[in-house]
Amino acid sequence: MPIPAPNFDPPFNILRLSHVELVVKDLAISRSFYVDTLGLQVTDETDERIYLRAMEERGHHCLVLKKGAKPQVGELAFKVFDEAHLEQGAAWFKSQDLPVEWVDRPYQSKTFCTRDPHGVPLEFYARMDRLQPIHQQYALYKGVKPLRIDHFNCFSPNVDESVAFYNQLGFRVTEYTEDEATGNLWAAWTHRKGGVHDIAFTNGRGPRLHHLAFWVPTPLNIIDLLDLMATTGYVGNIERGPGRHGISNAFFLYILDPDGHRTEIYCSDYQTIDPDLEAIRWDLKDPQRQTLWGAPAPKSWFEHGSLFHGASVRDADLTASPIIAP
Amino acid sequence: MPIPAPNFDPPFNILRLSHVELVVKDLAISRSFYVDTLGLQVTDETDERIYLRAMEERGHHCLVLKKGAKPQVGELAFKVFDEAHLEQGAAWFKSQDLPVEWVDRPYQSKTFCTRDPHGVPLEFYARMDRLQPIHQQYALYKGVKPLRIDHFNCFSPNVDESVAFYNQLGFRVTEYTEDEATGNLWAAWTHRKGGVHDIAFTNGRGPRLHHLAFWVPTPLNIIDLLDLMATTGYVGNIERGPGRHGISNAFFLYILDPDGHRTEIYCSDYQTIDPDLEAIRWDLKDPQRQTLWGAPAPKSWFEHGSLFHGASVRDADLTASPIIAP
Amino acid sequence: MPIPAPNFDPPFNILRLSHVELVVKDLAISRSFYVDTLGLQVTDETDERIYLRAMEERGHHCLVLKKGAKPQVGELAFKVFDEAHLEQGAAWFKSQDLPVEWVDRPYQSKTFCTRDPHGVPLEFYARMDRLQPIHQQYALYKGVKPLRIDHFNCFSPNVDESVAFYNQLGFRVTEYTEDEATGNLWAAWTHRKGGVHDIAFTNGRGPRLHHLAFWVPTPLNIIDLLDLMATTGYVGNIERGPGRHGISNAFFLYILDPDGHRTEIYCSDYQTIDPDLEAIRWDLKDPQRQTLWGAPAPKSWFEHGSLFHGASVRDADLTASPIIAP
Amino acid sequence: MPIPAPNFDPPFNILRLSHVELVVKDLAISRSFYVDTLGLQVTDETDERIYLRAMEERGHHCLVLKKGAKPQVGELAFKVFDEAHLEQGAAWFKSQDLPVEWVDRPYQSKTFCTRDPHGVPLEFYARMDRLQPIHQQYALYKGVKPLRIDHFNCFSPNVDESVAFYNQLGFRVTEYTEDEATGNLWAAWTHRKGGVHDIAFTNGRGPRLHHLAFWVPTPLNIIDLLDLMATTGYVGNIERGPGRHGISNAFFLYILDPDGHRTEIYCSDYQTIDPDLEAIRWDLKDPQRQTLWGAPAPKSWFEHGSLFHGASVRDADLTASPIIAP
Repeated sequence: MPIPAPNFDPPFNILRLSHVELVVKDLAISRSFYVDTLGLQVTDETDERIYLRAMEERGHHCLVLKKGAKPQVGELAFKVFDEAHLEQGAAWFKSQDLPVEWVDRPYQSKTFCTRDPHGVPLEFYARMDRLQPIHQQYALYKGVKPLRIDHFNCFSPNVDESVAFYNQLGFRVTEYTEDEATGNLWAAWTHRKGGVHDIAFTNGRGPRLHHLAFWVPTPLNIIDLLDLMATTGYVGNIERGPGRHGISNAFFLYILDPDGHRTEIYCSDYQTIDPDLEAIRWDLKDPQRQTLWGAPAPKSWFEHGSLFHGASVRDADLTASPIIAP
Repeated sequence: MPIPAPNFDPPFNILRLSHVELVVKDLAISRSFYVDTLGLQVTDETDERIYLRAMEERGHHCLVLKKGAKPQVGELAFKVFDEAHLEQGAAWFKSQDLPVEWVDRPYQSKTFCTRDPHGVPLEFYARMDRLQPIHQQYALYKGVKPLRIDHFNCFSPNVDESVAFYNQLGFRVTEYTEDEATGNLWAAWTHRKGGVHDIAFTNGRGPRLHHLAFWVPTPLNIIDLLDLMATTGYVGNIERGPGRHGISNAFFLYILDPDGHRTEIYCSDYQTIDPDLEAIRWDLKDPQRQTLWGAPAPKSWFEHGSLFHGASVRDADLTASPIIAP
Repeated sequence: MPIPAPNFDPPFNILRLSHVELVVKDLAISRSFYVDTLGLQVTDETDERIYLRAMEERGHHCLVLKKGAKPQVGELAFKVFDEAHLEQGAAWFKSQDLPVEWVDRPYQSKTFCTRDPHGVPLEFYARMDRLQPIHQQYALYKGVKPLRIDHFNCFSPNVDESVAFYNQLGFRVTEYTEDEATGNLWAAWTHRKGGVHDIAFTNGRGPRLHHLAFWVPTPLNIIDLLDLMATTGYVGNIERGPGRHGISNAFFLYILDPDGHRTEIYCSDYQTIDPDLEAIRWDLKDPQRQTLWGAPAPKSWFEHGSLFHGASVRDADLTASPIIAP
Repeated sequence: MPIPAPNFDPPFNILRLSHVELVVKDLAISRSFYVDTLGLQVTDETDERIYLRAMEERGHHCLVLKKGAKPQVGELAFKVFDEAHLEQGAAWFKSQDLPVEWVDRPYQSKTFCTRDPHGVPLEFYARMDRLQPIHQQYALYKGVKPLRIDHFNCFSPNVDESVAFYNQLGFRVTEYTEDEATGNLWAAWTHRKGGVHDIAFTNGRGPRLHHLAFWVPTPLNIIDLLDLMATTGYVGNIERGPGRHGISNAFFLYILDPDGHRTEIYCSDYQTIDPDLEAIRWDLKDPQRQTLWGAPAPKSWFEHGSLFHGASVRDADLTASPIIAP
């Protein structure tokens, strides 16, 4: 059994992924991509940062664009149940000899930053400013009509290690790819909030962010986005899709922002609340796990990722032909 | 047999419905409805008129909004094959003792106005200014994403007479409702361009315009429009639907503009090119002909219509309970 | 503040609604409705019962059809975290002087039945037989392509009392309608699993089941079901819709089975995981809370419901005109 | 100007494409593909042939599967206005020194076979047995819900010659790709029935059939077909798509039947009735003409086609890199 038993008694209660900061070179260019094209809503903007939320979200931000000289990724942020759990979380990371730093984040209550053992920068908080609902202000919907941030996906140099670590924090594996030859994990999807994933890991030089993902209402919204991007100068930013993943059953599209940060737009996962939910195992040799319909992903999709700030990258411990069996 | 045999040798070649002029009381208010909400594109505007086209149309206008004190409807306009056919058309109307007046219409070549025997004002022309295609400028799509004007529907005080007249002009009946008791036509759908209808007639005090109609890509665009109208102050302008007509198999929505002019938004008719196409007969007693799914139409839908300029209105020759069998 | 503060420390952990038993007069007739028309999958059937699941469910059943002389509703069943929580649940109901009976249910582990204070029959269990995933066996999808059971909705003779009771069990209010005049709750939507509702209550003679609900992929699946029902003898079973609820933002359809049990087919709710999620308040005088698009619900929808086995029904404590403000 | 002026006075009136015969090696295997998977309706079947129609068609067949040792394509069939036009058509082909053979075709009136100058086998008739409408028998819809046959697409060894020939017959060019260097046509789409095409030609070794095409209601039906094919043993038969063509604006999918005959499933073209419709010119160097969204077509799509019975194939007169600029 390559995946650990689910841990229903984690040291503190992480509710869900919350947001991420992307460092971009030109805020105006990125605004055009995320706001005018994708349809995210601006909740605040300064000379240094743009704060964005999706249509059904009431928290202040799910994506922060930060101006910087070098495109990279800041902390992957998660919301915890309350301040007591936040303190327990900080204590736990310290107990693991992982760095804990309390920081001030606008629009968030007390927040600490830390890293996972591979160096992925993480951020935890309990409360964020709440905004008025806009999910029924239909005049605001545009672009792909993004409803909510859904998950992060990271290149991990050792997926077994990543899964073991996050499993301690209560992230439960829903689907995974196993390298039959070695019994090692090639990729794994883990969740807290009752869907297929809050964070997923795939084997590769890392740690790097493979993509963040937004949930949209139907496949037709994704087709609308493709038409829009293809005729407004973004045809080169369409990387892969549309298609159906075998894993997760998602109808997906992958796009690259002007700095090369990858976003997945998707719909169609399923509920994973049951504690007796069986994780679905996929074989590394089965190409339909990646694209149910058979079309291969482009090479860039296996190779390109965004660097995390301050994280050292190393090659994956596992190797396999990225062409034959990525 | 209540409907006349198709006439494949009409006196001149009418290609399709083209456009209509609606007289509205406030151009700014109507612009907000047709442009900002429905998503039609402005091709010209003055203090007196706004010219609009839908997304796949290359002719200059399919709808003209004209400022006026009293909401009413101008000519129902049709495009003919060429100038020779236009002249033949004018001669034919004169031969029927119907009025023919040559008029100047901006953006149109030589144009004549006339009336059908019930007084419906008609307009014919052969050439209109052609504009650049915009159907692949996806950034322009908004609202319900209207693709093209599709048909007119009129209250007729005598549908048998209306069908007999338009049949002479080559309009072919695709579907019709017959009053079984009397053998009279209650309603009829007639086409020139190879779909279910260019112009339809339904029994009632008339002549009046029941509605004009726009074709849209999918039912989801209609749902999007409903959400938009319901949350931007237009909930009272939603009259009927969404639903499926038995007749024509259209997925439909009926809305009223700020002056009470009715528009149908729809998709899903079928091709009617074959000269041996059998018209489909519906019984006046079958409620599914109106709404396949069973929900009744509101009373206003049977009673309200727009007056044509200069046309006298009379009661319908046929009567039936509008509640039981409209 | 008419709704109680969320209770994050309930006496035992209820995961989600699980299933319901409907007593029907003729299994073959009901099978035709739920299996051939709606598209639920049969997981077992005997002369007395048919067990059904939806496409993404791996538990053995979400709906049990039981043959009986009189149409009625059996227990509303919920899944709890584990056997320890099940025992805690039984103890808690006993502590409230509510009846607890341990029963044998095929395909379920240890199960107890009880009632809420209004007499609604409830059932709790921790484990059910798990079946192979079928969500990617696309040849099995048919009808409306039901993905999962989503919620129950009950007529309650006193919604304040119902909400107070279920709040003790950790059900959190997401949206509610308040009678401004009295400050009483008219209706409330409460959840355990992170969506808008697992169980909802609406003011009326009760307790009675208003409806059960299935989640489907997109509005187009609902349109497909309407077309299918309308042309296979079920047009009279279409009660209300399609439409958009103001409350919950659901795109909905209500249908009646051959015994009059009501099912809602819907999509488009939102995530409600955050403990600081603000419940949305609606005014009883706002008709858009029921239908965002304005069309009124038919009278039957306010009046008709299914009786629970062994439950006495009483009139609602609150009254209001069901026509003006239901 | 590389395309000929439209010919509005052809020697006889061809209404539309009608049907095609595909020779297949195993009728049962092909039936499974076209009937059980695509959802075409069987209108007759014998040991030698299966006759099929799509959901809105009332003519007896749009596709005939014929058992044979070697997969190939029979006549591309077209419906003409009436028997007089049929006779004029036969006379015209004779006048061009093209072979004319009167044949008996089940379910068709008088029919003649001929060939175009490149050897493409053609068939013309005026009347076919008419069947009852089934477009509102929604229980029959399955697979991709094909509504009607839409067009043929052929590899032509000389597209200029093909277009010149069909232009004589009244087929009008709607869009075309021009090789800027030589001024030659690389591909052209021509219609009779008022859409983007009844028959199209693309440069390549020929004559061969590139594909036949069916029109479906929405992109979601195409996604449904992909899911179905991918999980019922047909994943290898998915060749290209889904995607949006620049040319024609079609949302498309290309699939191969068990004998390698290619079918396009598509929706979203536009009306082309106006005699003054401007053909849209695409540059051979613009990759978005093929896939608006940028993804390249697989090599097989440029190379593979079905042979016509009795037609000699020759290399294309024009050459260009099929990788860079097909």
